[in-house]
Amino acid sequence: MQQKEALKKIEELGKEVVGDIKEGKNPKFVTAARTRSNIVFDKKEGYLKLGTAKEERTFINVAQSRKFMQTIAIAAKCHKFLEEDLHTTIRGLFYQLKFSLGEDVDESIFSEQAESNPLIEDLEVSLGLKREELNLNANRKGVLAGNLKVEDTFGDEKQIIDASRMGRSGWAIPSDVDNDIRFIDIKARYVLVCEKDALWQRLNEDKFWKKENCILITPQGQAARGTRRLIRKLADEGLPVYVFTDSDAWGWYIYWTIKTGSINLAYIGNDVATPEAKFLGVTMSDLDKYDFLKKLTIKASDVDLKRAQEMLQYEWIKKHKEWVHELERMIKSKVKLEQDALQGPKLTFVDDYVREKIKNQDWLP
Amino acid sequence: MQQKEALKKIEELGKEVVGDIKEGKNPKFVTAARTRSNIVFDKKEGYLKLGTAKEERTFINVAQSRKFMQTIAIAAKCHKFLEEDLHTTIRGLFYQLKFSLGEDVDESIFSEQAESNPLIEDLEVSLGLKREELNLNANRKGVLAGNLKVEDTFGDEKQIIDASRMGRSGWAIPSDVDNDIRFIDIKARYVLVCEKDALWQRLNEDKFWKKENCILITPQGQAARGTRRLIRKLADEGLPVYVFTDSDAWGWYIYWTIKTGSINLAYIGNDVATPEAKFLGVTMSDLDKYDFLKKLTIKASDVDLKRAQEMLQYEWIKKHKEWVHELERMIKSKVKLEQDALQGPKLTFVDDYVREKIKNQDWLP
Repeated sequence: MQQKEALKKIEELGKEVVGDIKEGKNPKFVTAARTRSNIVFDKKEGYLKLGTAKEERTFINVAQSRKFMQTIAIAAKCHKFLEEDLHTTIRGLFYQLKFSLGEDVDESIFSEQAESNPLIEDLEVSLGLKREELNLNANRKGVLAGNLKVEDTFGDEKQIIDASRMGRSGWAIPSDVDNDIRFIDIKARYVLVCEKDALWQRLNEDKFWKKENCILITPQGQAARGTRRLIRKLADEGLPVYVFTDSDAWGWYIYWTIKTGSINLAYIGNDVATPEAKFLGVTMSDLDKYDFLKKLTIKASDVDLKRAQEMLQYEWIKKHKEWVHELERMIKSKVKLEQDALQGPKLTFVDDYVREKIKNQDWLP
Repeated sequence: MQQKEALKKIEELGKEVVGDIKEGKNPKFVTAARTRSNIVFDKKEGYLKLGTAKEERTFINVAQSRKFMQTIAIAAKCHKFLEEDLHTTIRGLFYQLKFSLGEDVDESIFSEQAESNPLIEDLEVSLGLKREELNLNANRKGVLAGNLKVEDTFGDEKQIIDASRMGRSGWAIPSDVDNDIRFIDIKARYVLVCEKDALWQRLNEDKFWKKENCILITPQGQAARGTRRLIRKLADEGLPVYVFTDSDAWGWYIYWTIKTGSINLAYIGNDVATPEAKFLGVTMSDLDKYDFLKKLTIKASDVDLKRAQEMLQYEWIKKHKEWVHELERMIKSKVKLEQDALQGPKLTFVDDYVREKIKNQDWLP
């Protein structure tokens, strides 16, 4: 059904272009501007999204003609992938275009390493579809354990994956958690997102998610699109989301990306941001609460300190006095604190820490 | 049982040290030298391993005293982890030591990012145990699908994971594939190791492993310890192992690391190297076999070219004329070829490619 809708949207775009040509008009399509100046923080909703500025891409325009053509070629390829019911990546798409169009393909646009893939984003925005709905897999990363069953329609069979029966491994979160996939039997009180896989493995070994009846996720560092989308979907099920990271620039970035979305993905902010998320720790204030942590701090790097300064300028952060306090404390003391430090006195202390934090509602906004 | 053996070995080391002290001798332990000059390529076995040079670490020695003490402290901590039946990482171990010993802990030794962790390696080598047997998890990466069931003894329950029922996700390969884990019901003709997760997902979507009756693994780039060990274990079950990577410096490095092991892990070469592995592709010679690939090459980087030159010097590579031909061809043509390029004409061509290569025994040694 989702597939049919995507096909229809691409076909409509095609018809418009053909219609323009038949009428002797300059073919065009309209997309929301993804320039920095059109990325706004929606105070009411609490996430980064695109503003109202639009951009028109036309065919008969020296600066836009080649890109226009490539975008239409991409749309045609995605239409084919949807009809074939097969997925690939933007790298696979690049080679399909290179094969059909020859040398006239700009490789840099399709580099998975590049932060922006402007043509595909053009298409996503103008069609109102995510790349996952165009059968393009994004990089995947992240693992989950907990009382959750997933129905994965995998070719001609429906497979049920029980995330409480995945042993030491957990369920590897896929690139696309919307299409042909369904969450069933969610029995949990909350979602715990744990930055580091090492700590996730520690908590998983203790069956923390079973004892606490929660869903335990690690994005394995910065969260991939699929993991962000999954967290959003679990929040939509009414589950509170708590994020647990290092107290350093990277950990904070992971948290704020989950919570408010990111500049790069502002065009799908509504789908991937979880403004309800709370920051559980570790915090600089933990140094006052857990005395042993004082000797387990490590030196903050220049990047940490610079980034803390920058964060103090963001309107969505500086409005929270608790965050201003955290950031200023690191800048002043020049030390940071890792999740792993909680294992200092005993390996299972991390369980007590999370439990206590949640019980006392001891989190940052 | 494995746990008991590890405990016993640590206790024996402790007794020896205590015995030395009681007798008024200088406490010592002996380990194999892990210096570059003691890393040898075993021509008969086909992998990198340590030579016969030994090193003695003594306590009463200005240069070694601190490290000796730290090594004993690590052994004591690992003994505790084994008794508690709990796992952590070397980062968690670092914080345990920092908590117990105070500031006298050299952080750089315990950095997970560092390529060598000399003290832990000392211990692994001198005890004849891998860190996984000391309850230290290494970084994990890699995913598997296929007709294979895994029994994972997870705390007080045995969980059976069916790698043919994991949908789009696959089974996430754990850090330790030896202890409390058992492979049952392996029904496969061969193992296909596919460098890129993107291609793994492509093949998995086509249920290639089901149609071909193989085990489909992606190390997701360079293979982690757990994935290398897993490949070794599957080869021990009598399954041929075929490796499928990009035709570039990074892809070749991934292959040779799986096949001959690596300098860093030469001390456990026997456990992680799979000399039987064959290189399926993509190869520079594919350009002659598949005409369409000619327009899908991309420019080789300076790193690729430099690395190809280096590889021509390695005794275990230059003895194979097929590899000399491959490397020289890249150096001369200055182009490389990605796995993804096989998707150029149609997304499912990669299936045909692998199938044909295996059928024709068209691989490199």
